[in-house]
Amino acid sequence: MNKHWNTLEVLRHARHDWLNRIQLIKGYIALNKVDRVREILDEIIADAHQESKLSNMNIPGFASLLLVYNWENHRIFLEYEVLDENFGKGLTVDDQFLTEWTKNFLDVLGTSVDEDAENYLSITIEPEDQGIRFFFDFRGRIIKEDLLMDYLREDSFIVQKIHACNEQELIIELFLQYATSV
Amino acid sequence: MNKHWNTLEVLRHARHDWLNRIQLIKGYIALNKVDRVREILDEIIADAHQESKLSNMNIPGFASLLLVYNWENHRIFLEYEVLDENFGKGLTVDDQFLTEWTKNFLDVLGTSVDEDAENYLSITIEPEDQGIRFFFDFRGRIIKEDLLMDYLREDSFIVQKIHACNEQELIIELFLQYATSV
Repeated sequence: MNKHWNTLEVLRHARHDWLNRIQLIKGYIALNKVDRVREILDEIIADAHQESKLSNMNIPGFASLLLVYNWENHRIFLEYEVLDENFGKGLTVDDQFLTEWTKNFLDVLGTSVDEDAENYLSITIEPEDQGIRFFFDFRGRIIKEDLLMDYLREDSFIVQKIHACNEQELIIELFLQYATSV
Repeated sequence: MNKHWNTLEVLRHARHDWLNRIQLIKGYIALNKVDRVREILDEIIADAHQESKLSNMNIPGFASLLLVYNWENHRIFLEYEVLDENFGKGLTVDDQFLTEWTKNFLDVLGTSVDEDAENYLSITIEPEDQGIRFFFDFRGRIIKEDLLMDYLREDSFIVQKIHACNEQELIIELFLQYATSV
Protein backbone atom coordinates (compact mmCIF):
# COMPACT_ATOMS: atom_id res chain seq x y z
CA MET A 1 0.00 0.00 0.00
CA ASN A 2 2.79 2.43 0.87
CA LYS A 3 4.85 1.24 -2.05
CA HIS A 4 6.58 4.00 -3.93
CA TRP A 5 5.44 4.01 -7.55
CA ASN A 6 7.99 5.11 -10.10
CA THR A 7 7.43 6.21 -13.69
CA LEU A 8 8.27 2.85 -15.27
CA GLU A 9 5.99 0.95 -12.92
CA VAL A 10 3.05 3.32 -13.40
CA LEU A 11 3.53 3.10 -17.17
CA ARG A 12 3.80 -0.68 -17.07
CA HIS A 13 0.52 -1.08 -15.19
CA ALA A 14 -1.27 1.55 -17.28
CA ARG A 15 0.02 -0.11 -20.46
CA HIS A 16 -1.23 -3.48 -19.23
CA ASP A 17 -4.74 -2.10 -18.56
CA TRP A 18 -4.89 -0.29 -21.90
CA LEU A 19 -3.64 -3.33 -23.79
CA ASN A 20 -6.42 -5.41 -22.24
CA ARG A 21 -8.91 -2.94 -23.71
CA ILE A 22 -7.12 -3.03 -27.09
CA GLN A 23 -7.21 -6.84 -27.08
CA LEU A 24 -10.92 -6.73 -26.29
CA ILE A 25 -11.51 -4.44 -29.28
CA LYS A 26 -9.33 -6.70 -31.44
CA GLY A 27 -11.41 -9.69 -30.36
CA TYR A 28 -14.72 -8.11 -31.31
CA ILE A 29 -13.25 -6.83 -34.60
CA ALA A 30 -12.22 -10.42 -35.39
CA LEU A 31 -15.80 -11.51 -34.69
CA ASN A 32 -16.98 -8.63 -36.88
CA LYS A 33 -19.10 -7.25 -34.01
CA VAL A 34 -18.59 -3.61 -34.87
CA ASP A 35 -21.53 -2.43 -32.75
CA ARG A 36 -19.97 -3.98 -29.67
CA VAL A 37 -16.68 -2.26 -30.55
CA ARG A 38 -18.50 1.08 -30.62
CA GLU A 39 -19.95 0.43 -27.16
CA ILE A 40 -16.54 -0.57 -25.77
CA LEU A 41 -14.92 2.55 -27.23
CA ASP A 42 -17.54 4.71 -25.51
CA GLU A 43 -17.04 2.87 -22.21
CA ILE A 44 -13.28 3.38 -22.46
CA ILE A 45 -13.70 7.10 -23.12
CA ALA A 46 -16.15 7.40 -20.19
CA ASP A 47 -13.72 5.58 -17.85
CA ALA A 48 -10.88 7.85 -18.92
CA HIS A 49 -13.11 10.84 -18.29
CA GLN A 50 -13.76 9.61 -14.73
CA GLU A 51 -10.03 9.12 -14.18
CA SER A 52 -9.43 12.62 -15.46
CA LYS A 53 -12.15 14.12 -13.19
CA LEU A 54 -10.70 12.40 -10.13
CA SER A 55 -7.19 13.57 -11.04
CA ASN A 56 -8.32 17.19 -11.35
CA MET A 57 -10.04 17.42 -7.94
CA ASN A 58 -7.07 18.83 -6.02
CA ILE A 59 -6.81 15.70 -3.90
CA PRO A 60 -3.68 14.18 -5.49
CA GLY A 61 -2.84 11.80 -2.63
CA PHE A 62 -6.37 10.36 -2.51
CA ALA A 63 -6.59 10.20 -6.32
CA SER A 64 -3.25 8.36 -6.62
CA LEU A 65 -4.31 5.95 -3.88
CA LEU A 66 -7.48 4.98 -5.79
CA LEU A 67 -5.84 4.89 -9.22
CA VAL A 68 -3.08 2.45 -8.28
CA TYR A 69 -5.06 0.37 -5.76
CA ASN A 70 -6.08 -2.43 -8.14
CA TRP A 71 -2.46 -2.77 -9.31
CA GLU A 72 -1.42 -3.76 -5.85
CA ASN A 73 -2.13 -7.11 -4.30
CA HIS A 74 -5.38 -6.68 -2.40
CA ARG A 75 -8.40 -8.78 -1.48
CA ILE A 76 -10.76 -6.11 -2.72
CA PHE A 77 -11.48 -4.78 -6.20
CA LEU A 78 -11.99 -1.04 -6.12
CA GLU A 79 -14.15 1.14 -8.38
CA TYR A 80 -14.91 4.84 -8.13
CA GLU A 81 -17.14 7.45 -9.68
CA VAL A 82 -17.04 11.24 -9.48
CA LEU A 83 -20.62 12.48 -9.63
CA ASP A 84 -20.39 16.19 -10.29
CA GLU A 85 -17.28 18.14 -10.89
CA ASN A 86 -18.93 21.56 -11.01
CA PHE A 87 -18.81 22.21 -7.28
CA GLY A 88 -15.74 23.17 -5.35
CA LYS A 89 -13.73 24.59 -8.24
CA GLY A 90 -10.56 26.06 -6.76
CA LEU A 91 -11.38 24.61 -3.35
CA THR A 92 -9.80 21.67 -1.69
CA VAL A 93 -10.25 19.41 1.31
CA ASP A 94 -7.42 18.19 3.53
CA ASP A 95 -5.89 15.71 1.08
CA GLN A 96 -3.32 14.38 3.53
CA PHE A 97 -5.92 13.58 6.17
CA LEU A 98 -8.34 12.07 3.63
CA THR A 99 -5.58 9.94 2.08
CA GLU A 100 -4.31 8.72 5.45
CA TRP A 101 -7.83 7.90 6.67
CA THR A 102 -8.68 6.03 3.45
CA LYS A 103 -5.36 4.13 3.41
CA ASN A 104 -5.97 2.93 6.96
CA PHE A 105 -9.61 2.14 6.21
CA LEU A 106 -8.62 0.06 3.17
CA ASP A 107 -6.03 -1.76 5.29
CA VAL A 108 -8.58 -2.55 8.00
CA LEU A 109 -11.21 -3.53 5.43
CA GLY A 110 -8.67 -5.76 3.65
CA THR A 111 -7.93 -7.51 6.95
CA SER A 112 -11.63 -7.85 7.74
CA VAL A 113 -12.78 -9.62 4.58
CA ASP A 114 -12.70 -13.23 3.48
CA GLU A 115 -9.87 -13.46 0.94
CA ASP A 116 -11.66 -16.22 -0.96
CA ALA A 117 -14.80 -14.13 -1.53
CA GLU A 118 -15.42 -11.68 -4.35
CA ASN A 119 -15.04 -8.35 -2.62
CA TYR A 120 -15.93 -5.07 -4.31
CA LEU A 121 -15.64 -1.56 -2.98
CA SER A 122 -17.36 1.18 -4.92
CA ILE A 123 -16.43 4.75 -3.94
CA THR A 124 -18.73 7.56 -5.02
CA ILE A 125 -17.30 11.06 -4.78
CA GLU A 126 -19.77 13.92 -4.69
CA PRO A 127 -18.43 17.46 -4.54
CA GLU A 128 -20.97 19.81 -2.90
CA ASP A 129 -21.18 23.46 -2.01
CA GLN A 130 -19.47 23.16 1.36
CA GLY A 131 -17.27 20.12 0.92
CA ILE A 132 -16.96 16.68 -0.60
CA ARG A 133 -19.25 13.79 0.24
CA PHE A 134 -17.98 10.22 -0.19
CA PHE A 135 -19.93 7.00 -0.22
CA PHE A 136 -17.95 3.81 0.37
CA ASP A 137 -20.12 0.91 -0.67
CA PHE A 138 -18.64 -2.54 0.00
CA ARG A 139 -20.13 -5.84 -1.20
CA GLY A 140 -18.45 -9.12 -0.41
CA ARG A 141 -17.86 -11.13 2.73
CA ILE A 142 -16.82 -9.50 5.99
CA ILE A 143 -15.48 -11.90 8.61
CA LYS A 144 -14.14 -9.39 11.15
CA GLU A 145 -16.98 -6.93 11.59
CA ASP A 146 -15.76 -5.85 15.06
CA LEU A 147 -12.36 -4.76 13.79
CA LEU A 148 -14.01 -2.67 11.11
CA MET A 149 -16.52 -1.06 13.47
CA ASP A 150 -13.73 -0.16 15.90
CA TYR A 151 -11.93 1.74 13.17
CA LEU A 152 -15.07 3.49 12.00
CA ARG A 153 -15.97 4.63 15.51
CA GLU A 154 -12.44 5.95 16.08
CA ASP A 155 -12.50 8.80 13.57
CA SER A 156 -16.12 9.79 13.76
CA PHE A 157 -15.63 13.35 12.54
CA ILE A 158 -15.07 12.19 8.93
CA VAL A 159 -17.61 9.34 9.12
CA GLN A 160 -21.06 10.92 8.89
CA LYS A 161 -23.17 7.82 8.83
CA ILE A 162 -22.90 4.06 8.70
CA HIS A 163 -25.79 3.11 6.45
CA ALA A 164 -25.21 -0.62 6.63
CA CYS A 165 -22.75 -2.99 8.23
CA ASN A 166 -23.29 -6.71 8.11
CA GLU A 167 -21.57 -9.81 6.78
CA GLN A 168 -22.31 -8.99 3.12
CA GLU A 169 -22.14 -5.25 2.98
CA LEU A 170 -20.83 -2.07 4.47
CA ILE A 171 -22.07 1.32 3.37
CA ILE A 172 -20.57 4.41 4.93
CA GLU A 173 -20.94 8.09 4.19
CA LEU A 174 -18.07 10.51 4.73
CA PHE A 175 -17.99 14.27 4.52
CA LEU A 176 -15.04 16.63 4.47
CA GLN A 177 -15.43 20.40 4.44
CA TYR A 178 -13.39 22.51 2.07
CA ALA A 179 -10.40 23.73 4.00
CA THR A 180 -8.45 26.25 1.99
CA SER A 181 -8.54 27.78 -1.42
CA VAL A 182 -5.84 26.42 -3.70
CA MET B 1 13.86 17.85 -18.38
CA ASN B 2 14.71 17.32 -14.72
CA LYS B 3 11.08 17.64 -13.76
CA HIS B 4 9.92 15.15 -11.18
CA TRP B 5 7.08 13.07 -12.59
CA ASN B 6 4.47 11.93 -10.12
CA THR B 7 1.88 9.19 -10.50
CA LEU B 8 -0.99 11.50 -11.48
CA GLU B 9 1.07 13.29 -14.11
CA VAL B 10 2.40 10.10 -15.66
CA LEU B 11 -1.13 8.70 -15.78
CA ARG B 12 -2.50 11.92 -17.26
CA HIS B 13 0.00 11.91 -20.11
CA ALA B 14 -0.34 8.17 -20.74
CA ARG B 15 -4.14 8.52 -20.73
CA HIS B 16 -3.90 11.37 -23.22
CA ASP B 17 -1.75 9.29 -25.61
CA TRP B 18 -3.99 6.24 -25.30
CA LEU B 19 -7.14 8.29 -25.80
CA ASN B 20 -5.68 9.67 -29.04
CA ARG B 21 -5.32 6.09 -30.26
CA ILE B 22 -8.87 5.26 -29.12
CA GLN B 23 -10.22 8.33 -30.95
CA LEU B 24 -8.37 7.23 -34.08
CA ILE B 25 -9.99 3.80 -33.87
CA LYS B 26 -13.38 5.44 -33.24
CA GLY B 27 -12.88 7.60 -36.33
CA TYR B 28 -12.15 4.67 -38.62
CA ILE B 29 -15.02 2.67 -37.11
CA ALA B 30 -17.34 5.60 -37.93
CA LEU B 31 -16.03 5.50 -41.51
CA ASN B 32 -16.54 1.73 -41.46
CA LYS B 33 -12.89 1.15 -42.40
CA VAL B 34 -12.47 -2.01 -40.37
CA ASP B 35 -9.29 -3.07 -42.19
CA ARG B 36 -7.63 0.17 -41.18
CA VAL B 37 -8.76 -0.43 -37.57
CA ARG B 38 -7.07 -3.84 -37.67
CA GLU B 39 -3.82 -2.24 -38.83
CA ILE B 40 -3.98 0.44 -36.14
CA LEU B 41 -4.61 -2.16 -33.43
CA ASP B 42 -1.53 -4.08 -34.57
CA GLU B 43 0.55 -0.90 -34.58
CA ILE B 44 -0.62 -0.06 -31.07
CA ILE B 45 0.27 -3.53 -29.82
CA ALA B 46 3.71 -3.32 -31.50
CA ASP B 47 4.38 0.11 -29.91
CA ALA B 48 3.39 -1.19 -26.50
CA HIS B 49 5.71 -4.15 -27.02
CA GLN B 50 8.59 -1.76 -27.75
CA GLU B 51 7.78 0.24 -24.63
CA SER B 52 7.74 -2.95 -22.64
CA LYS B 53 11.10 -4.13 -24.08
CA LEU B 54 12.72 -0.79 -23.25
CA SER B 55 11.28 -0.88 -19.72
CA ASN B 56 12.67 -4.37 -19.10
CA MET B 57 16.27 -3.65 -20.13
CA ASN B 58 17.58 -2.82 -16.63
CA ILE B 59 18.24 0.79 -17.61
CA PRO B 60 15.35 2.44 -15.73
CA GLY B 61 16.74 5.98 -15.77
CA PHE B 62 17.40 5.91 -19.51
CA ALA B 63 14.05 4.22 -20.21
CA SER B 64 12.11 6.79 -18.15
CA LEU B 65 13.96 9.61 -19.89
CA LEU B 66 12.89 8.37 -23.34
CA LEU B 67 9.34 7.47 -22.30
CA VAL B 68 8.45 10.89 -20.89
CA TYR B 69 10.52 12.99 -23.33
CA ASN B 70 7.71 13.80 -25.78
CA TRP B 71 5.47 14.87 -22.87
CA GLU B 72 7.84 17.65 -22.02
CA ASN B 73 8.20 20.80 -24.02
CA HIS B 74 11.02 20.12 -26.48
CA ARG B 75 11.98 21.16 -29.99
CA ILE B 76 12.58 17.56 -30.99
CA PHE B 77 10.22 14.64 -31.39
CA LEU B 78 11.78 11.44 -30.12
CA GLU B 79 11.24 7.87 -31.27
CA TYR B 80 13.03 4.71 -30.19
CA GLU B 81 13.28 1.06 -31.13
CA VAL B 82 14.78 -1.89 -29.28
CA LEU B 83 16.17 -4.27 -31.88
CA ASP B 84 16.87 -7.49 -30.07
CA GLU B 85 16.09 -8.20 -26.47
CA ASN B 86 17.70 -11.62 -26.35
CA PHE B 87 21.18 -10.41 -25.53
CA GLY B 88 22.30 -9.17 -22.18
CA LYS B 89 19.67 -10.92 -20.08
CA GLY B 90 20.56 -10.29 -16.45
CA LEU B 91 23.30 -7.86 -17.46
CA THR B 92 23.23 -4.12 -17.22
CA VAL B 93 25.20 -1.10 -18.33
CA ASP B 94 25.87 1.95 -16.15
CA ASP B 95 22.36 3.40 -16.24
CA GLN B 96 23.25 6.53 -14.30
CA PHE B 97 26.07 7.43 -16.66
CA LEU B 98 24.02 6.62 -19.77
CA THR B 99 21.05 8.65 -18.50
CA GLU B 100 23.19 11.63 -17.56
CA TRP B 101 25.04 11.58 -20.90
CA THR B 102 21.77 11.31 -22.87
CA LYS B 103 20.05 14.05 -20.82
CA ASN B 104 22.93 16.42 -21.52
CA PHE B 105 23.09 15.39 -25.16
CA LEU B 106 19.36 16.05 -25.58
CA ASP B 107 19.78 19.44 -23.90
CA VAL B 108 22.65 20.38 -26.22
CA LEU B 109 20.83 19.04 -29.27
CA GLY B 110 17.70 20.97 -28.27
CA THR B 111 19.74 24.16 -28.04
CA SER B 112 21.43 23.43 -31.37
CA VAL B 113 18.34 23.01 -33.54
CA ASP B 114 16.03 25.45 -35.27
CA GLU B 115 12.86 25.51 -33.17
CA ASP B 116 10.71 26.20 -36.23
CA ALA B 117 11.92 23.12 -38.10
CA GLU B 118 10.52 19.60 -37.84
CA ASN B 119 13.13 17.85 -35.76
CA TYR B 120 13.11 14.10 -35.22
CA LEU B 121 15.46 11.96 -33.21
CA SER B 122 15.25 8.23 -33.66
CA ILE B 123 17.14 6.13 -31.12
CA THR B 124 17.89 2.52 -31.96
CA ILE B 125 18.94 0.31 -29.07
CA GLU B 126 20.79 -2.86 -29.92
CA PRO B 127 21.80 -5.17 -27.08
CA GLU B 128 24.86 -7.24 -28.04
CA ASP B 129 27.06 -9.89 -26.46
CA GLN B 130 29.38 -7.48 -24.68
CA GLY B 131 27.23 -4.41 -24.20
CA ILE B 132 24.55 -2.20 -25.70
CA ARG B 133 24.96 -0.31 -28.96
CA PHE B 134 22.89 2.84 -29.54
CA PHE B 135 22.29 4.74 -32.75
CA PHE B 136 21.07 8.32 -32.40
CA ASP B 137 19.75 9.39 -35.77
CA PHE B 138 18.64 13.02 -35.96
CA ARG B 139 16.84 14.61 -38.93
CA GLY B 140 15.84 18.25 -38.87
CA ARG B 141 17.69 21.53 -38.92
CA ILE B 142 20.85 22.07 -36.90
CA ILE B 143 21.89 25.71 -36.54
CA LYS B 144 24.62 25.36 -33.91
CA GLU B 145 26.77 22.52 -35.22
CA ASP B 146 29.86 23.67 -33.26
CA LEU B 147 28.11 23.46 -29.91
CA LEU B 148 27.00 19.93 -30.70
CA MET B 149 30.42 18.79 -31.91
CA ASP B 150 32.03 20.19 -28.77
CA TYR B 151 29.76 18.06 -26.59
CA LEU B 152 30.31 14.94 -28.70
CA ARG B 153 34.10 15.32 -28.55
CA GLU B 154 34.01 15.78 -24.79
CA ASP B 155 32.84 12.29 -23.81
CA SER B 156 34.45 10.28 -26.53
CA PHE B 157 34.52 7.00 -24.60
CA ILE B 158 30.77 6.49 -25.03
CA VAL B 159 30.67 7.95 -28.57
CA GLN B 160 32.09 5.29 -30.87
CA LYS B 161 31.56 7.02 -34.17
CA ILE B 162 30.00 10.12 -35.69
CA HIS B 163 28.54 8.80 -38.93
CA ALA B 164 27.17 12.13 -40.10
CA CYS B 165 26.97 15.67 -38.85
CA ASN B 166 25.68 18.43 -41.05
CA GLU B 167 22.86 20.95 -41.13
CA GLN B 168 20.16 18.35 -41.81
CA GLU B 169 21.34 15.32 -39.95
CA LEU B 170 23.40 13.89 -37.16
CA ILE B 171 24.05 10.18 -36.82
CA ILE B 172 26.09 8.94 -33.90
CA GLU B 173 26.89 5.50 -32.63
CA LEU B 174 27.37 4.83 -28.94
CA PHE B 175 28.51 1.72 -27.14
CA LEU B 176 28.42 0.87 -23.45
CA GLN B 177 29.89 -2.35 -22.08
CA TYR B 178 27.94 -4.41 -19.57
CA ALA B 179 29.17 -3.43 -16.15
CA THR B 180 27.70 -5.70 -13.52
CA SER B 181 25.27 -8.53 -13.31
CA VAL B 182 21.96 -7.49 -11.77
